[in-house]
Amino acid sequence: MEHVTSRWGVLVLHALRSETLRYGRLRRKIIGVSEKMLTQTLQTLERDGLVHREVFPVIPPHVEYSLTPLGEGAAARVAALFAWIEDHTSDVVAAQDRYDDRKVS
Amino acid sequence: MEHVTSRWGVLVLHALRSETLRYGRLRRKIIGVSEKMLTQTLQTLERDGLVHREVFPVIPPHVEYSLTPLGEGAAARVAALFAWIEDHTSDVVAAQDRYDDRKVS
Repeated sequence: MEHVTSRWGVLVLHALRSETLRYGRLRRKIIGVSEKMLTQTLQTLERDGLVHREVFPVIPPHVEYSLTPLGEGAAARVAALFAWIEDHTSDVVAAQDRYDDRKVS
Repeated sequence: MEHVTSRWGVLVLHALRSETLRYGRLRRKIIGVSEKMLTQTLQTLERDGLVHREVFPVIPPHVEYSLTPLGEGAAARVAALFAWIEDHTSDVVAAQDRYDDRKVS
């Protein structure tokens, strides 16, 4: 549970929802993630059976990441949460403004 | 978005889904959270308009936390994700076993 709800975990699941990506593309898509954290997150998600890692035996090495059917299921719930957040961002921003006004006055 | 998907954020939203709780009860319900992290998470969720903080002017002070209607919406999506995880825990554990076997052999 911790893995799926970890900050980088949800972002990786979300990034891979629509496409298979190489490591470099994935890292550029997830703003702010360090190489160490992304590698660790991918390894955890692969071990959990949520992400599939495909290594192509070429030089230089070529590795692609995609969601497994199990990962697609998790990513769909994550997407529902993200969609809700997107739809309610203005409500949250309005609440923050009210809160900050209250603290100042 | 970061707030709702933060590890403690989702756990607080989930804990408050079914009930109004005092700080101490909430902290006992969320295993592993430090006082500092819980206070900070509650403050962030209150500022975001997801959590309502009710202070009762008694001695000793009595403070109750509950979800706002906005928070209920977020918590419902979090609950859907948690329910999916619960339903698929055995798949994840089986995947972990396969992964670990592969690494050993």
